Amino acid sequence: MTMPTFADDDALLEWVAQSLYTGVLSDACDAVGLRDRTLGPDIRPLDESRVLVGRAKTVAWAPMFHVPARPYDKEIAAVDSLRPGEVMVMAVGRSAEIVPWGELLSTATLARGGRGAVLDGLVRDSRRIRELGLPVFCTGRRPLDSCGRGIVVDFDVPIRVDGVPIAPGDLVVGDADGVVVVPRAAEAEVLDHAWTKVAGEDRTRAALRAGSLLADVFREHGIL
Amino acid sequence: MTMPTFADDDALLEWVAQSLYTGVLSDACDAVGLRDRTLGPDIRPLDESRVLVGRAKTVAWAPMFHVPARPYDKEIAAVDSLRPGEVMVMAVGRSAEIVPWGELLSTATLARGGRGAVLDGLVRDSRRIRELGLPVFCTGRRPLDSCGRGIVVDFDVPIRVDGVPIAPGDLVVGDADGVVVVPRAAEAEVLDHAWTKVAGEDRTRAALRAGSLLADVFREHGIL
Amino acid sequence: MTMPTFADDDALLEWVAQSLYTGVLSDACDAVGLRDRTLGPDIRPLDESRVLVGRAKTVAWAPMFHVPARPYDKEIAAVDSLRPGEVMVMAVGRSAEIVPWGELLSTATLARGGRGAVLDGLVRDSRRIRELGLPVFCTGRRPLDSCGRGIVVDFDVPIRVDGVPIAPGDLVVGDADGVVVVPRAAEAEVLDHAWTKVAGEDRTRAALRAGSLLADVFREHGIL
Amino acid sequence: MTMPTFADDDALLEWVAQSLYTGVLSDACDAVGLRDRTLGPDIRPLDESRVLVGRAKTVAWAPMFHVPARPYDKEIAAVDSLRPGEVMVMAVGRSAEIVPWGELLSTATLARGGRGAVLDGLVRDSRRIRELGLPVFCTGRRPLDSCGRGIVVDFDVPIRVDGVPIAPGDLVVGDADGVVVVPRAAEAEVLDHAWTKVAGEDRTRAALRAGSLLADVFREHGIL
Amino acid sequence: MTMPTFADDDALLEWVAQSLYTGVLSDACDAVGLRDRTLGPDIRPLDESRVLVGRAKTVAWAPMFHVPARPYDKEIAAVDSLRPGEVMVMAVGRSAEIVPWGELLSTATLARGGRGAVLDGLVRDSRRIRELGLPVFCTGRRPLDSCGRGIVVDFDVPIRVDGVPIAPGDLVVGDADGVVVVPRAAEAEVLDHAWTKVAGEDRTRAALRAGSLLADVFREHGIL
Amino acid sequence: MTMPTFADDDALLEWVAQSLYTGVLSDACDAVGLRDRTLGPDIRPLDESRVLVGRAKTVAWAPMFHVPARPYDKEIAAVDSLRPGEVMVMAVGRSAEIVPWGELLSTATLARGGRGAVLDGLVRDSRRIRELGLPVFCTGRRPLDSCGRGIVVDFDVPIRVDGVPIAPGDLVVGDADGVVVVPRAAEAEVLDHAWTKVAGEDRTRAALRAGSLLADVFREHGIL
Repeated sequence: MTMPTFADDDALLEWVAQSLYTGVLSDACDAVGLRDRTLGPDIRPLDESRVLVGRAKTVAWAPMFHVPARPYDKEIAAVDSLRPGEVMVMAVGRSAEIVPWGELLSTATLARGGRGAVLDGLVRDSRRIRELGLPVFCTGRRPLDSCGRGIVVDFDVPIRVDGVPIAPGDLVVGDADGVVVVPRAAEAEVLDHAWTKVAGEDRTRAALRAGSLLADVFREHGIL
Repeated sequence: MTMPTFADDDALLEWVAQSLYTGVLSDACDAVGLRDRTLGPDIRPLDESRVLVGRAKTVAWAPMFHVPARPYDKEIAAVDSLRPGEVMVMAVGRSAEIVPWGELLSTATLARGGRGAVLDGLVRDSRRIRELGLPVFCTGRRPLDSCGRGIVVDFDVPIRVDGVPIAPGDLVVGDADGVVVVPRAAEAEVLDHAWTKVAGEDRTRAALRAGSLLADVFREHGIL
Repeated sequence: MTMPTFADDDALLEWVAQSLYTGVLSDACDAVGLRDRTLGPDIRPLDESRVLVGRAKTVAWAPMFHVPARPYDKEIAAVDSLRPGEVMVMAVGRSAEIVPWGELLSTATLARGGRGAVLDGLVRDSRRIRELGLPVFCTGRRPLDSCGRGIVVDFDVPIRVDGVPIAPGDLVVGDADGVVVVPRAAEAEVLDHAWTKVAGEDRTRAALRAGSLLADVFREHGIL
Repeated sequence: MTMPTFADDDALLEWVAQSLYTGVLSDACDAVGLRDRTLGPDIRPLDESRVLVGRAKTVAWAPMFHVPARPYDKEIAAVDSLRPGEVMVMAVGRSAEIVPWGELLSTATLARGGRGAVLDGLVRDSRRIRELGLPVFCTGRRPLDSCGRGIVVDFDVPIRVDGVPIAPGDLVVGDADGVVVVPRAAEAEVLDHAWTKVAGEDRTRAALRAGSLLADVFREHGIL
Repeated sequence: MTMPTFADDDALLEWVAQSLYTGVLSDACDAVGLRDRTLGPDIRPLDESRVLVGRAKTVAWAPMFHVPARPYDKEIAAVDSLRPGEVMVMAVGRSAEIVPWGELLSTATLARGGRGAVLDGLVRDSRRIRELGLPVFCTGRRPLDSCGRGIVVDFDVPIRVDGVPIAPGDLVVGDADGVVVVPRAAEAEVLDHAWTKVAGEDRTRAALRAGSLLADVFREHGIL
Repeated sequence: MTMPTFADDDALLEWVAQSLYTGVLSDACDAVGLRDRTLGPDIRPLDESRVLVGRAKTVAWAPMFHVPARPYDKEIAAVDSLRPGEVMVMAVGRSAEIVPWGELLSTATLARGGRGAVLDGLVRDSRRIRELGLPVFCTGRRPLDSCGRGIVVDFDVPIRVDGVPIAPGDLVVGDADGVVVVPRAAEAEVLDHAWTKVAGEDRTRAALRAGSLLADVFREHGIL
C-alpha cells in the first residue's frame, strides 16, 4: 500500500490524525531504530477523546522565586510567534509550583492556528480549555499563576521532556495512550512504516477475533 | 464593580460557587501576599463537574496497627458535630493504608448539611459517593476499611495538608483544577480581589480571541 | 440470610459481580484475618463503569534490553492457554518501559472467554480496549511495544502484585475502587461474610439518611 | 552443632550480637516461612560499626499541626517505662516533619539500660548520639524539634514499620546491612536455623576462596 | 547569660560555629514563630565533620538542553562577585542532570574567602572537595558537567530551597544534622534564644544521665 | 601530550585507574557526543575510597515470587564464566526485594580475577565485602536472600542501567562520584580526550588558587 502524497504540511498533519495513532507510530520509530520517542505515562490528555497532531514549538521554563523585571517577555514572544500547525511543547521539569498553561494561552494558541500543547508540568482553567477544544497533554492541574514562580528562559531551541530530545518542527502526536515525538529527519521513513503496519493489523485482529491461537497468528503474520 | 453583600454565610458560599473559581481565588491570594494556599496536584475531585465551597471542619488522622479500645470515638464525634455549610478536611498524610472516607460518612455529611470532603488520602465507595452528589477531593481510591489501620486523633484543630495550614472555618473551594483554602482573616480582601479580576478577564479573553498579540493585550490590560 | 448455591463457577462469578463489590469483599477479608488483600491505589480501571470478576491466570514479566531468540514463546503460550472465566494477572513491577497489554491481547482474551486483565504496569490501545468492553486494571498507558523491552519469564505460578500474593485460581474482583484478590482457601468464608455484611448495610444507610447520629447508628448496628 | 543455652535474656542478646548477623537471621526467617521480616533499605544505622540487638519497645506517632494540651505525656511515659534490654521501635510513617529522636532520648535510653532505637523517621543531634555509642537506625536527619509537629499516640502496642508487623518483645537485630525483626513465637526456631547456617558458611567461603566453581560449591554444600 | 558582642560579622560567624548547632538554631527559630527554616533531610554534608556558617549568596539555575550562546556568563559573574564570609546557596530543583558544583568552583570559592556551598542538587569531584576542606551540602554526586544541561538564570535574588525562602545575606548554618537558614530580620532574636537554650541543656542532660525520669526532668526544666 | 600505549588490557585498566577519574571521563564522553553515559546518583560505592575499572560482564535479573526448578542455573553460570578484568554489571530494576550480591559472589568474583560489581539494586554482607576489598556500587543494602525473590534471566547480553545502554566488554569506571560506562567503539577517542583534559586542568586549578577571576581563567583556558 503506497503512502499518499500531501498538498501541504497541514494536509499531512490531518492525514496523520485520521489514519495513524500513537501506538503504531511508536512501533514505526522502533522499526527504524528510534527506541525512546514516547513521553512517559504521567503526561496525560486533558480530554482523552481528542487527538493532537502538530509541529513542535519548543519552550524551556525555569523556576523563579521572585518577580523579576519584565517577567513575561520571552513567554509573550514565544506565544506571539506561534505559527499555524504548531504545538507548544514546554519543558517544565515536572515542577509542582510552575503552572505555565491556562485559558489565556489556550485562547491565544487557537487564535494563531496552534494545534495544542504538551508539557511536563501542570495546567489551570482545565474545564475552560476543554470547552475551547484545544488538545492539551500535561502532568496534572493546579490553580496557580506562574508569575513569581517560573519564567521562560528560551524558545525555539532543542529541549528534552521525559528524556526524549525534541527539536523545533518535530512531529508531535498525542492521543489517549500518550505522546510520541518523531524527529524531522526520520519522519518520512517512520510514517511509511506506520502506514504499512496499520494496513496489516486488520488481518491479525480478524484472525484473533475468530478464535485463532496467538501462536498461529504470530506464525502467519509475524506481528503481535 | 462592587462586591455584593450577603444575607448569611450560606448566601456567601453560594455566590462564591456561582461567581468565582479556584484559579481566580489563587490569584487573589497571591495578590494579598498569601502565595501558598493551593493544595497540590495529587488531590483530585471524584467528580470533575462538581464545585465545592464550604467552611473547613478539620480532622487529624494517625496510622494505627491494631484495633484500640473505642476506636471510633473521635471519628464519630467529628462527624456528629458537623454543621451546615462545613466541609470535612482531613489530614491523612497520604497514607496508602488508611481509607477514612466512604459512603457512610458521605451520607452522614449530607444529612447534616455538610458540603463535601477534602483529604490527602484515599476514599472507597467512590461510585456511590458520586451518585450521592457530594463533592469529594482525594488522592485516590482503595477498597479498604480504616478500622485497625488509622484513627482520628483530634478535630477542630489547626492542620496542614500539602504544607498549607488550614484552620477551622477557613473557606475551602474546589473545582476541576484543585483546591484553594482562604484563611478567615484574609477572606474579605481575597474575595474582593477575585471579584475584580473576574470582571477584567472577559476583556482580555475577547481581545485574544479576536487575534490580538499577547504583547498588546498584556500592555493594555496588565494581566496574563 | 443464606448464601445461594451455584450451578458452576461461572454462575458464582456472575453472582459476585451482581451482588458484591470490592469494599465489602475487603471488609470480609479483614473479618477472616486476611488484612492485605487489596492492590494499591495506583492500579486503576481503564473504564470505571465496568466490574471485573474472574479467576487469576498469573504471568511474571522481566525487563529485557534486547530482542532475545524466540521472544514471544511464553507470552503466546500464556495467552493461548487462557480458559473461560480467567483474568490475566501480570506482575510487571511497575516498569515504565514494558507495556505488556494492548488491543491484540484483549481481543485474544475475549475470544477465549477471558474476563479481563490486571497488571502493575502499563497498557496501550486504551480506547480500543474500552470499545471491546474488556475490564482492564493498570497503572497507566504508554504507546510502546513490549518487544525488546520485556519478556514473560513464567506463568501459572505464584506472583505478588503490590505485595499481595496471588496464586493461580484466586478470585479477582475489580471495580471503581480498585482490586481485591481472595485466596482460594478462604473464598467460601469470605463470600459468606461479604454477603451478610451487604444485607446489614441497608439499615445503617437508611438510619443515617434519616439524620441519625453516627454514634447512635454505630451503637445499634455495630458497623461504620 | 548444638545451640548454647543462656542464663538470662541478656546473655541471649549478647550471644546473638556476637555470633549472628542480619543476613543469616533473614535467611533463617525465610527457612521457617517468614519471608517479610527485614525492614527496607532506607532505614540505615547512624554508625555502621555498631550492632543492635534487643527487645522491641513499640511506639506509634501521629502528625500534629499545633501544640496540644499535654503534648509530651505519652512520649514521656514510653521512655520512662523502658526496661533494660529493650530497643525503642517507632512507627513514624516516614514523616519528614516529625523528628522524634535526639540526644535527650538517647541519654535517657542509655540510663535505663536500653539498647538502641529503630524508626522509619528522622533523628537530630546525630553526632552526639554517635558519641554516646547508642545504635540508632533511621531514615535520615533533620535538625527539627517534634513539638507541634507530632505526638505519641500509643505505645506497647503492635505496630508496622515498612510493612513488617512488630510486637512488643520481638527480637530486633540491626547491623550495617539493615534491620531484621524476629517474632517471639518463632524466635527459638529461627535462632537455631541461623546458628546452623553460620557454621556451614565457613566451608563454602573457603572453597570459593580456593577458586572452586560456584556450580561445584553449590552442588556440594547446597547453599549460595 | 548575656550574648557576647562581636567586632565584625566574621567574629559573629565564628562564634556561631563554635557555640551553636543546627538543632538549637531550629528550636530558636520555632521559638520566634519561624517554623519552616530547616532544609529537608536529603541535603547532606559531603563531610559530616565540617560545620558551615556563612551569609547566603543566592543563585538560581535552570535546566537547559543545548549549549546556548555565552553559557557561562552569569555563573562566572556569580562566583567572581562572591565576598568573604559568603556561602553559595544554589536552587537547582533537585535536577539529576545539572551538576553545578565541583572542584573548580570550590577552589574559586576558597580563594575569595567563601565559606561553603549548599544546593538542592548534585556535585562532582567530591573527594577533591573534601581534601580542599570546603563544607558542601548537596543531594548527591554524579560525574557530569553542567554545560549543555543547565545555566544560571539569576543571582543575588530571593530563592527557595526545599520550600524554605532564602534571601541574600541570610545566615546559613550546616552540620551533620542538616542545614538551617535564619532570616536577617530575625537573626538577633534567634541567636539570643539559641544561646539561652544551649546554656540550659547541660542541666537536663546531666539529670538524665544520672537516671532521672524524663517526667521529672521535664517538670523541672520544661524542655525535652 | 601523547597517550601511552599498553602491553595488554590489564595495563590499560590500571592506567585508567591511576590517571583518570569519572568526572573527566564523563567530560570526554560529552566531547565525543555521548551525553548519557553516567549512571544516576543513587548508585553509590560501598567504599568511597576504592576505584573500580574493568570490562562489563552483563547480567539481567527478573523478579520471581516462588522458588522455580533450578533457580540458580544462570546465576551460577554467569559467575563461573567471569574472566579476569571483568566487572559484574547487573540490571535489577531497583527492586527492593531482590538482593543479588553478597559475600559469596564477592569471594567468587575475586577468586576469578574479577574487578568489582555495579548494580541498580541492593547488596548484603556489606561489611565483609568491604573487608574483602572488592569495589561494589549499588543502590543500598538489605539483609535478604535472592532465592524465591529473583532469578537471572540472561547474561552476556546488552542491558540498560539508569537508562544507560551497557554492552558486554564496555569500559566501566567508578569512584566516589559515581559510575561512567564507555562504549567499546568510542573508547580510544574518549580516553584520548580525557587524557588531554587532565593535563590542562592543573593550570586552571593553579590560576584559581592564586586568586584569578573565573572570567579570566575561562577566557584564557576555555574550560570551567
